Amino acid sequence: MPSSYLNFRHSSPWLILLLETLFIVRSYFLFLSLDSHPSAQDSYPEFQDVHHMVIFGFGFFLMVLRRFGFSSTGFNLLLIVLGVQSSVLVEDSLVFFYPGADEGVLKSITKAIVSMTAVIISTGAVLGKANHVQLIVMTLVELIVFYVSRWINRRFLEVDDQLSLMHVHLFGAYFGLAVTSCFPEPSPGLDKNRSTPKSDLLSVLGSVFLWVFWPSFNSLLAESKTEAILNTYFALAVSAVTAFMLSALTSKDGKFRMTHIHSAVLAGGVTVSYTAQSISHPWIAMILGLLGSVITILGSHCLQSCLNPPLKIHDTSGVHFTFGLPAVLGALAQVVLLVIRDWTNSSSLHYLVLLHVGAFCQTISVALITGFITGSVLNTRLLKVTPVSKYFEDQFYWEFPHLAVGF
Amino acid sequence: MPSSYLNFRHSSPWLILLLETLFIVRSYFLFLSLDSHPSAQDSYPEFQDVHHMVIFGFGFFLMVLRRFGFSSTGFNLLLIVLGVQSSVLVEDSLVFFYPGADEGVLKSITKAIVSMTAVIISTGAVLGKANHVQLIVMTLVELIVFYVSRWINRRFLEVDDQLSLMHVHLFGAYFGLAVTSCFPEPSPGLDKNRSTPKSDLLSVLGSVFLWVFWPSFNSLLAESKTEAILNTYFALAVSAVTAFMLSALTSKDGKFRMTHIHSAVLAGGVTVSYTAQSISHPWIAMILGLLGSVITILGSHCLQSCLNPPLKIHDTSGVHFTFGLPAVLGALAQVVLLVIRDWTNSSSLHYLVLLHVGAFCQTISVALITGFITGSVLNTRLLKVTPVSKYFEDQFYWEFPHLAVGF
Amino acid sequence: MPSSYLNFRHSSPWLILLLETLFIVRSYFLFLSLDSHPSAQDSYPEFQDVHHMVIFGFGFFLMVLRRFGFSSTGFNLLLIVLGVQSSVLVEDSLVFFYPGADEGVLKSITKAIVSMTAVIISTGAVLGKANHVQLIVMTLVELIVFYVSRWINRRFLEVDDQLSLMHVHLFGAYFGLAVTSCFPEPSPGLDKNRSTPKSDLLSVLGSVFLWVFWPSFNSLLAESKTEAILNTYFALAVSAVTAFMLSALTSKDGKFRMTHIHSAVLAGGVTVSYTAQSISHPWIAMILGLLGSVITILGSHCLQSCLNPPLKIHDTSGVHFTFGLPAVLGALAQVVLLVIRDWTNSSSLHYLVLLHVGAFCQTISVALITGFITGSVLNTRLLKVTPVSKYFEDQFYWEFPHLAVGF
Repeated sequence: MPSSYLNFRHSSPWLILLLETLFIVRSYFLFLSLDSHPSAQDSYPEFQDVHHMVIFGFGFFLMVLRRFGFSSTGFNLLLIVLGVQSSVLVEDSLVFFYPGADEGVLKSITKAIVSMTAVIISTGAVLGKANHVQLIVMTLVELIVFYVSRWINRRFLEVDDQLSLMHVHLFGAYFGLAVTSCFPEPSPGLDKNRSTPKSDLLSVLGSVFLWVFWPSFNSLLAESKTEAILNTYFALAVSAVTAFMLSALTSKDGKFRMTHIHSAVLAGGVTVSYTAQSISHPWIAMILGLLGSVITILGSHCLQSCLNPPLKIHDTSGVHFTFGLPAVLGALAQVVLLVIRDWTNSSSLHYLVLLHVGAFCQTISVALITGFITGSVLNTRLLKVTPVSKYFEDQFYWEFPHLAVGF
Repeated sequence: MPSSYLNFRHSSPWLILLLETLFIVRSYFLFLSLDSHPSAQDSYPEFQDVHHMVIFGFGFFLMVLRRFGFSSTGFNLLLIVLGVQSSVLVEDSLVFFYPGADEGVLKSITKAIVSMTAVIISTGAVLGKANHVQLIVMTLVELIVFYVSRWINRRFLEVDDQLSLMHVHLFGAYFGLAVTSCFPEPSPGLDKNRSTPKSDLLSVLGSVFLWVFWPSFNSLLAESKTEAILNTYFALAVSAVTAFMLSALTSKDGKFRMTHIHSAVLAGGVTVSYTAQSISHPWIAMILGLLGSVITILGSHCLQSCLNPPLKIHDTSGVHFTFGLPAVLGALAQVVLLVIRDWTNSSSLHYLVLLHVGAFCQTISVALITGFITGSVLNTRLLKVTPVSKYFEDQFYWEFPHLAVGF
Repeated sequence: MPSSYLNFRHSSPWLILLLETLFIVRSYFLFLSLDSHPSAQDSYPEFQDVHHMVIFGFGFFLMVLRRFGFSSTGFNLLLIVLGVQSSVLVEDSLVFFYPGADEGVLKSITKAIVSMTAVIISTGAVLGKANHVQLIVMTLVELIVFYVSRWINRRFLEVDDQLSLMHVHLFGAYFGLAVTSCFPEPSPGLDKNRSTPKSDLLSVLGSVFLWVFWPSFNSLLAESKTEAILNTYFALAVSAVTAFMLSALTSKDGKFRMTHIHSAVLAGGVTVSYTAQSISHPWIAMILGLLGSVITILGSHCLQSCLNPPLKIHDTSGVHFTFGLPAVLGALAQVVLLVIRDWTNSSSLHYLVLLHVGAFCQTISVALITGFITGSVLNTRLLKVTPVSKYFEDQFYWEFPHLAVGF
């Protein structure tokens, strides 16, 4: 193969260096206060929970490919540290314009990590197809676009800060899908594309890791934390049970399929992310968890056989049905619950429903449009597109001094 | 083999669906308050600790078999989410009858997770032999029986709530042994029954995970939390050291054996579970940790060569010596410490000793009797007994679309 | 091979038993109070963080060798439980002489775990070459020497308690290097010395585990916790980014090398360990993180090609460049930052600089001298030196009843 493909030496280090220099220079003029908030120390456990969840949970979650373990964990770490830094500095610029918005650096980092979830979800869609230079560019673009989308939601559509942040799943999944539709498809008979029992086991452990920490994630900025925690827990519990049930129902011989468990246990957490703090009774959260799991497993069958082949979308980790569909369901549930609650008060109801539907449409359309543009830009010659034959291959990015290669 | 064995499709999904529907319908009439307690949020870190410990610790701990990794972690998760839900709803029914008992849902879930430990320990004894339908039935029966046994202890034998919950190890181990004695024995020369170095390493990591979180477990409902934490820590530290010492002493050439470390590091935590909060001086906890580790390692040699073959008990993960024997020792130590402390006050001493011995005997006999009955019921044709030739085999329960099977 | 090498049965169990008896007897006369401090329970989360980090993080971090997984995790656990117990009892003796120093057992255990980091770092240098009897002796000697060195720093050089504890990295790395220089070198063509992709992945996961918990470690005893957490986080983030950048720059074809990531992501945390709580602006921490990562990766190239071969030092896990060099840089940075801050107040500046330089020189020279002596003692016939042909071999220490050996 031509050496112009292989040598990242002239691009990736300099891009990273440029970014890092920018961050350091920019942080010299940091306006966020280090310790103004007496409650800063109290939010450390929350920060730790979300940090572990994103670093380890997604690090393992993405380890589905048999020859892509190094890149899955390594690039996950690289993108998160780059993304969090740029996110903090963007947030900091706003403090300069609106001094009242200063919540302290630790809170700002925590929110940056939550925003990074969108990027990591998008990464799941292009996993193994985009090289790290493309991923870094995508991270920066996606973070800025997500920031703008959140700002529109908050400014014009009266969505509060917590809810605007909970659009991460929706935004991340559809941005990733739009990006991946611009990449050339891998050849169908490719062996590297498959998982091994070991990579399946590791990625399920990642799912379970995310599952365990999900109540912390959903209750992060919630006002009524206990309710958010409990509703999320119940939704997750029911979706885990439903995942096993549907996996046995939809497969031959009533056996379980690991990929079903891998994606459907999380569906409940994604589905209630919008409504966790406002649901007044656990049985509603349980129903949502059930529906989330159903839509994920049925979606995985429909999408992989009907929708993806004609649209030529190759979604490596299945982020469409793992995060996208349950998030759509969650947004729908939010509107339905609102209508039921405010049925009598019909004057403001129309307005509120309009705002919620508007925020949903704005988020998903911005994600799809900018994702498509980003995907097209990423596939220009400038960014050294990975050849299709080198997809899903750790050795394209990492040195392997080991004698035995297969692990 | 006849297809009547293989097809779980007509049983397991419907059983799970039935249970889950029951849970959701039942939760519609939930009496537990979601947020009545101002301290609810404070107990979230404790809940998280115990939750991680049970999900990950036992998930890895049970991964001893070379071809049973998927089922060990997968079924562990399924049983825990089903068990916790049914436990919460049983607890909730009581709140209806005794309204004063309402402690909030989060506390209730935390206690449900602790109760599930009994089930997971029992699962360890029948691991690889019982199919998931049998395991689900066993979970429900065991939870209800354990609940009744705790209620008898609290109501008639004046055992307080925390201590009655600490009978999990004793109850779980002997219930599991009674159940496993009803299963047909695997053929002795079976290869799948063995561990690989990798599965050994993973299951030891599970042990260490449990080891690290054990102080949180023992101090969960304790009144003097700090003492419970410290006594448990010292007992665990000594039992870890003793495990290495005895492993080197009892093996050829003074080498260590991984299975010894696997079971004996936890012995100290189990042994002091009854007394962690009342021991006034760490050296007593250290002695108990030492004795716990000794009884585990000597027990593992005696049981496997003398007791199990004549009684035809096949205890897959060795729960008898890992959890059963240290728990018996702990109950004995509780009585001895009580006698030493209240020696002068002999009037109430007899009564107290009688209560403790009564609680111990009641728990162990209920566990053995109901375990035996449950085991017999599980082995009727109705529940589609797994054929002995398919013991310890992931492929009997999971789809393996992978080309390479051995992992 | 002669059987005198193989049989640890007559040495290791008795040594462990002797130590454990000593600990139990000694703890009978424990002066530290179990529950005197009302804040004892508050420090449990900190204790948990550091405990997890040391047990799991270093347990995985040391898993670099292809055939040494059992020993890496197993001996790590054994050394930590032995070391913590002896540390607590040494601390307790001081309470007898200075009753005011009593901070409660939990705080004392937490500090003991931090001190154990020095031992675990030293273990990394002799990994696979020293047997467990040698490691236990080294642990005891190193803990006592480190305690004396800290005492000199506090008593004569006015270093406060927190800073004196932060010398663990410096002390551990140079003590370990001095010890390993006394061991015979393994033959250069040895295959067991190498890593596999799987062991690389596990050890990088260990690094990431340490990385995530490092802010807790650096802020443990700090007065301004939030600043210590944030500065450490920024330094770690920059050093992770720099690790990827330099790895691509220094390798052929711009590929990443896993061993670079393995050691350099932590460099930032080590570098700011002295100054995390006193740095007033994050950009300084970021610069230090950058420099720490640079010195680690350049150091790894220089040391392995220039310094180690002539000095006949074989540093198994590369602790010199992972912990030693960044710690030296951190000590230097501490002096430079002090000079910049107190430039105007030149009267006390000279004195303060002298104290800092003195503490640094005292620590490093005590580490090197006592390390060399310890290394010489460890290589006497008494302690059953491991033959060079049995280096890096789990089967020398563990029973392998498995049929398939390679894992």
